[in-house]
Amino acid sequence: MNWIDELKNLLGDCVRTDEATLQAHAGDKWHAAALPEAVVLARTTEDVAAAMKVAHAHGISVTPRGAGVGYVGGCVPVRGGLVISTATMTRIVEVNPSDGVAVVEAGVLTADLQEACARKGWFYPPDPASRKESSIGGNIATNAGGPRCLKYGVTRAYVLGLTVVLPDGSILNCGGRTHKNKQGFDLVGLFCGSEGMLGIITQATLRIIPAPPARAALHASFPRFALAAQAVQNVLQGGHLPCALEITDAFTLAAARRHLGPGVLPEAAQGHIIIEIDGREDAVAAELNAISAILRQTGAVDIVPAVTEAEVEAIWQLRREFSYSLKATGLTKLNEDIVIPRSQLVALVEFCESMQKETGIPVACFGHSGDGNIHTNIMVLKDAEGNDIRPPADALVNRLFEWVVSHGGSITGEHGIGLAKAPWFAGAIGPVAMQLHRSLKQALDPTGILNPGKMGL
Amino acid sequence: MNWIDELKNLLGDCVRTDEATLQAHAGDKWHAAALPEAVVLARTTEDVAAAMKVAHAHGISVTPRGAGVGYVGGCVPVRGGLVISTATMTRIVEVNPSDGVAVVEAGVLTADLQEACARKGWFYPPDPASRKESSIGGNIATNAGGPRCLKYGVTRAYVLGLTVVLPDGSILNCGGRTHKNKQGFDLVGLFCGSEGMLGIITQATLRIIPAPPARAALHASFPRFALAAQAVQNVLQGGHLPCALEITDAFTLAAARRHLGPGVLPEAAQGHIIIEIDGREDAVAAELNAISAILRQTGAVDIVPAVTEAEVEAIWQLRREFSYSLKATGLTKLNEDIVIPRSQLVALVEFCESMQKETGIPVACFGHSGDGNIHTNIMVLKDAEGNDIRPPADALVNRLFEWVVSHGGSITGEHGIGLAKAPWFAGAIGPVAMQLHRSLKQALDPTGILNPGKMGL
Repeated sequence: MNWIDELKNLLGDCVRTDEATLQAHAGDKWHAAALPEAVVLARTTEDVAAAMKVAHAHGISVTPRGAGVGYVGGCVPVRGGLVISTATMTRIVEVNPSDGVAVVEAGVLTADLQEACARKGWFYPPDPASRKESSIGGNIATNAGGPRCLKYGVTRAYVLGLTVVLPDGSILNCGGRTHKNKQGFDLVGLFCGSEGMLGIITQATLRIIPAPPARAALHASFPRFALAAQAVQNVLQGGHLPCALEITDAFTLAAARRHLGPGVLPEAAQGHIIIEIDGREDAVAAELNAISAILRQTGAVDIVPAVTEAEVEAIWQLRREFSYSLKATGLTKLNEDIVIPRSQLVALVEFCESMQKETGIPVACFGHSGDGNIHTNIMVLKDAEGNDIRPPADALVNRLFEWVVSHGGSITGEHGIGLAKAPWFAGAIGPVAMQLHRSLKQALDPTGILNPGKMGL
Repeated sequence: MNWIDELKNLLGDCVRTDEATLQAHAGDKWHAAALPEAVVLARTTEDVAAAMKVAHAHGISVTPRGAGVGYVGGCVPVRGGLVISTATMTRIVEVNPSDGVAVVEAGVLTADLQEACARKGWFYPPDPASRKESSIGGNIATNAGGPRCLKYGVTRAYVLGLTVVLPDGSILNCGGRTHKNKQGFDLVGLFCGSEGMLGIITQATLRIIPAPPARAALHASFPRFALAAQAVQNVLQGGHLPCALEITDAFTLAAARRHLGPGVLPEAAQGHIIIEIDGREDAVAAELNAISAILRQTGAVDIVPAVTEAEVEAIWQLRREFSYSLKATGLTKLNEDIVIPRSQLVALVEFCESMQKETGIPVACFGHSGDGNIHTNIMVLKDAEGNDIRPPADALVNRLFEWVVSHGGSITGEHGIGLAKAPWFAGAIGPVAMQLHRSLKQALDPTGILNPGKMGL
């Protein structure tokens, strides 16, 4: 029997071959797309296992997919075949403060989990910007980050146990619901960030923590970017570990002033930081004052504190406006989530300014300065007909990555490799690490049917 | 040429074959021991790589070793061959607050790194009880924990980059010095906790954080163990995330009263907790009061706060005395570092009490209650000649592990599997996970020369 008919016999309605469904499962937020031949909208781990077994028996490529909002083409079915979506597995099985765990199916949206925890006074810290549209399965598959990782760590730090369907269709349960576990190799860690290439995550047991009772924030403007970068160092050296420590460069600030109108940001601002802290009620106000003093000493020209929830939220809205401001320029932005050692912040921005000066292509930097994860946006210029002039921008991406690697950085801190960064991957990690990737892929997926073509594997 | 002569030609004096050195590298703190044929006291990563290449060419078993203070026989050279020790690689390459990293060779003692960080006002949180005698390499190879993991996470959360010598002698650099890194699979995580079976860790780049400005602690006694366990829940449900939350059972408290004399612990204490918090100066005193109120409401009969460094240290000394008290009973203790879901604390202690009642063999429970990692000590009784009566105690270990696995727990939270827990390993993780362990071992060490015989692989 044809593999699609076999799937339909086994799984019925959740196997789709209609054009609209195929189209909807052809790609993510990156530009590449390819149609699968069939899509399984999985309801259970057993659905995923059954579909995987059929694909394995027939040698059909399988591309796993969560909410499909990645930035690197990680769920593009480049060899057609089958897409297995876990976006349809949206059950929050439990939020259990007594054990400090939440158990969720892979398709649960991160924000929904966070709200379920908050209703019980508990907290799931990982907060990718996409948290309202990205799923836990995808967050785990890409080891998602976010602003709060500075204090709280990335997704991996919160994954205690996983249910994973392996490429032969067998079901692996690894880790568990204990907060420590030293039983053998770190299988949970192996699947975190594996981008759907080693197994399909269907359920996760996550560590949750008591919600900090209070938070506060501030944003501050500086007359030079280098002073904002120095402020990042001074705050940390002053013994503060904020949840978030975001920085924005002069180009983005200029775009934001145009987008937001006068009065929101000082005309003189060439660098800007946002700081969020959390902790005990009686501590955050005092800490905010202490941090403000550090910023003033470092040359901040404008410091806006936020102590109520609404004020804090307004600061994060400002952060989102920075992103919208760049979109409002009308230019396509190539958002590269590079990471550098924290001390290289000024050097990175100066390098980007020099590239901009030389080529005329704007480069906008903003992001998570506390952990050196700066979203570096290369703005694609347009020709007279309004079409993107891609080659010079692509050449700049090349130069950026070379600079990052030669300065001890990483070409991706959050988005992953997928298709988009595959051309630079082997160069970034070196031949020994690349060979080890091949060995691991071969060990777990010897026939190479699971999410083929990603990471250059 | 004989492999040992080849090693001596290449590496000179750091190759040892004298009886004293062989004896000193035959085992760890567990009871098993086996003599290697030669020992390399490595000075550099290149020494390790050269030795590994020779062993690989000759098919000689290699047992890597850090400070050799493990509890599960993880560095016993069961097949003889070569021991490669990294205990001699003790250089702290840098402590760099600007990047938030420390770079250390594998043989650096954890306490030495912590002190080097503290001198700069920075903090490396992982704190295994053995921190003054265990090395970073060993900590990483076992993914070491400690009391502070409740708030700060285990060793894995602090490892950014590793240099690892692979079984064929090639040198892998993975991860790096950035605080986020999504470049491919999580190779760093794969080696964390791999117990020297996949590669030999020679250098690590570690994440360090600003030292919290203040800490405070308390200890409190309860008339029943169940109330102490309830206090653990109430503190966390009250929105507090202490660094440490330790619990002690009635048997241990009775031993401690005998060992310490009267006046230190109330006669009525049948359960006891230690709590450490850290944070801003102005916050810790207030939080200590809030926690004390919770404990009073939960039935604590005696609450002793500690706010000065000396007072806090005295509480941790009391914690150490609990361990010495059990040793002072004169009985051998089988210290099993099991982990249970936090809600199972009372059930675990009641199960241990029922085993004790039934068999007459004392079982003492104390440990990291916040993360459910309870050191469960089965006390080996002695016969008339003063010899250990092991079989009934071993049978109790069996029953304990069965109970733990059936209650969603883990048979080891900190010590690892090694030789000691290998008999229970496959049963604890199940056949699919066990097969995956075999596949990973085969992929990275196809000839099986690296740390053979551990984890039953």
